[in-house]
Amino acid sequence: MDAISVIRTKRDGGRLSDRQIDWVIDAYTRGEVADEQMSALAMAILLNGMEREEIARWTAAMIASGERMDFSSLPRPTADKHSTGGVGDKITLPLAPLVAACGAAVPQLSGRGLGHTGGTLDKLESIPGWRALLSNEEMLQVLADTGAVICAAGDGLAPADKKLYALRDVTATVEAIPLIASSIMSKKIAEGTGSLVLDVKVGSGAFMKNIEDARELAATMVGLGTDHGVRTVALLTDMSTPLGLTAGNALEVRESVEVLAGGGPADVVELTLALAREMLDAAGLRDADPAKALADGSAMDVWRRMIAAQGGDPDAELPVAREREVVTAPASGVLARLDAYAVGVAAWRLGAGRARKEDPVQEGAGIELHAKPGDTVVAGQPLMTLHTDTPEKFPYALAALADAVEVAPAGTLVEPVPLILGRVA
Amino acid sequence: MDAISVIRTKRDGGRLSDRQIDWVIDAYTRGEVADEQMSALAMAILLNGMEREEIARWTAAMIASGERMDFSSLPRPTADKHSTGGVGDKITLPLAPLVAACGAAVPQLSGRGLGHTGGTLDKLESIPGWRALLSNEEMLQVLADTGAVICAAGDGLAPADKKLYALRDVTATVEAIPLIASSIMSKKIAEGTGSLVLDVKVGSGAFMKNIEDARELAATMVGLGTDHGVRTVALLTDMSTPLGLTAGNALEVRESVEVLAGGGPADVVELTLALAREMLDAAGLRDADPAKALADGSAMDVWRRMIAAQGGDPDAELPVAREREVVTAPASGVLARLDAYAVGVAAWRLGAGRARKEDPVQEGAGIELHAKPGDTVVAGQPLMTLHTDTPEKFPYALAALADAVEVAPAGTLVEPVPLILGRVA
Repeated sequence: MDAISVIRTKRDGGRLSDRQIDWVIDAYTRGEVADEQMSALAMAILLNGMEREEIARWTAAMIASGERMDFSSLPRPTADKHSTGGVGDKITLPLAPLVAACGAAVPQLSGRGLGHTGGTLDKLESIPGWRALLSNEEMLQVLADTGAVICAAGDGLAPADKKLYALRDVTATVEAIPLIASSIMSKKIAEGTGSLVLDVKVGSGAFMKNIEDARELAATMVGLGTDHGVRTVALLTDMSTPLGLTAGNALEVRESVEVLAGGGPADVVELTLALAREMLDAAGLRDADPAKALADGSAMDVWRRMIAAQGGDPDAELPVAREREVVTAPASGVLARLDAYAVGVAAWRLGAGRARKEDPVQEGAGIELHAKPGDTVVAGQPLMTLHTDTPEKFPYALAALADAVEVAPAGTLVEPVPLILGRVA
Repeated sequence: MDAISVIRTKRDGGRLSDRQIDWVIDAYTRGEVADEQMSALAMAILLNGMEREEIARWTAAMIASGERMDFSSLPRPTADKHSTGGVGDKITLPLAPLVAACGAAVPQLSGRGLGHTGGTLDKLESIPGWRALLSNEEMLQVLADTGAVICAAGDGLAPADKKLYALRDVTATVEAIPLIASSIMSKKIAEGTGSLVLDVKVGSGAFMKNIEDARELAATMVGLGTDHGVRTVALLTDMSTPLGLTAGNALEVRESVEVLAGGGPADVVELTLALAREMLDAAGLRDADPAKALADGSAMDVWRRMIAAQGGDPDAELPVAREREVVTAPASGVLARLDAYAVGVAAWRLGAGRARKEDPVQEGAGIELHAKPGDTVVAGQPLMTLHTDTPEKFPYALAALADAVEVAPAGTLVEPVPLILGRVA
């Protein structure tokens, strides 16, 4: 077996054999297959595709490259959620404690943001004292004590995926559905959850710009989860405009706490409840009532215990950025468009995100929205407030927002985009 | 400008801009673009192709990565030949002195063999004392004194190509017509020849297995040469069976000397004369008579002076391998097929070629043929003699030859394959 013959098979449009896949993933993890060989293979996969059986084997080989976690000692059924990433997507924060409050165990291994989408760990780290890095024992302890844990995935989980993801990032081979699906699912399956709900985002602020690609990705991942004994379901949800009214680390924590307190923006509440119902269904807890758990404070109670168990102070003041700038409505009428990607890039430029893995993020930076598509606006009224510690970045953020806003004449009917666009089970 | 955006353009089927090409070749030569990025780009080029203007710019950028040679001080017009490589292809050896004997200057920068095709320098190094490595000054001196020089290309010529070729070799991205054409032509144009004849091989023993691919490669290279002011013409020639009756280093030198002495196999003589006429035409020497220069010994005279000028003894005994094994005809009838690729692999396994760049070659190893397709054969008569210093390799060579020979019943009409299949100018 050698790398050249494996690359050649995929280059020429063939199907990789199980032996080829097992060998190339293992040899790459060990460093016998070089980065330049794997990147050529990744490009061939991106351009020539993979059959379902190839993706399944590729995923299994990535799982086999590292350790698998086991939550079978817990008395509760486990449920996990994964979002493909969007702008203002803070849903994990209210969702994990909410689902735990309804009786499931929620082991939420999360990541950091790269590019224009934020990362769950970056958001939670704006809470004074909160720690993302837990040992496996600490993680299980928090999960057993509070019902939910949100922390960084350990290095032992699917190391082949870690190495391959870093390579894809610099070789323009991220956008391949077989590679995206196997990357997400190898981590989630190795993590050992019993059920999994996928939030596949569609629109300008998401990886998948159209519903067909999103549906293909969702179906691929649901198939992979099911094949590995994980009850898996996917919702396709809109990411043409930011979720909620905030994008940025501390700003999103604040909004999440509002949701847990029974308030918060309607779209965040709607999506949180929809995903909670799917997770509880998949975990076999069909009688649970997540709306009640939000209303009666039991979800908030789990949140406070979960944050405290990881060293955070749930009552602490959240960081606030030093400088603000207000963007106003350019005309009176109906807000027809507020582009998710533009808002994501602007928040990133303000300091909410990072360009390279080793960069720090600003806790207080980001964007608050004062209107959403469909709202009536008056010329000159505040549309957004930009927050940053580095005001010299305002011009770059404003440049990203140049074409983000569209105001239609008063009386124009702006057809609302439904938040939940589809379901794949 | 960054590597990811360049890769993405080609990945998505777009055309690389002049700026993108200039930047990526220069940055790769300097080490700013990493091997894993260039291999992803090479795979995208292989699968999505390049337009003629892109290939021209890519070639120009590779030429610009190093030095250019200049033969304008010579009183004679320069002519060069390049073969895409085949089995038993020793044509450069008689051709260079022959064309020099007819009045052109022939600066023949050559390479070593890798895989099943032999290398011109490896062949000549079987002549005791002969040196392949010359300084630019020595090279010009031999050329001025004898009219021809065959030597290794210096490291300063198209260094981007050297780096990229080594990368393509390990990433299954060799077989891309834009990359093959730009690799060959960047070296030949940087070398500074005024005219160039390309011998594009077609068949089992060649890179291009079918005439359509060979014609596309030839047309691409002729276009590149013409665009850079080099009078360029290509012949498409058969490589379904070995050229001549020998494959192997000293064996091929011996056959070349026979041709220079006025004898030798008909196909080697035919191709040598056809290529000589094209080179002399391209160099503007339309009245020269290469057949006469072979017959009257003037080509042999240049050969002897050229070999001696590079330290070789033209009268020395050539090395002979220690062991022999004879392969006999399996049946009586007409030899219908004698496969070039199989003979090439067998010669390579006997020690005539190398698996890795740093391996040595055996001077005496190789294969002598005693019959060619179309010849009548009798069961049990010798068909080939295998030569090696390492007789433990005989079984591996014989395995490669297992399906190489086909004998048709006596009286079968074996349609002769013409040697010269086409011409592109």
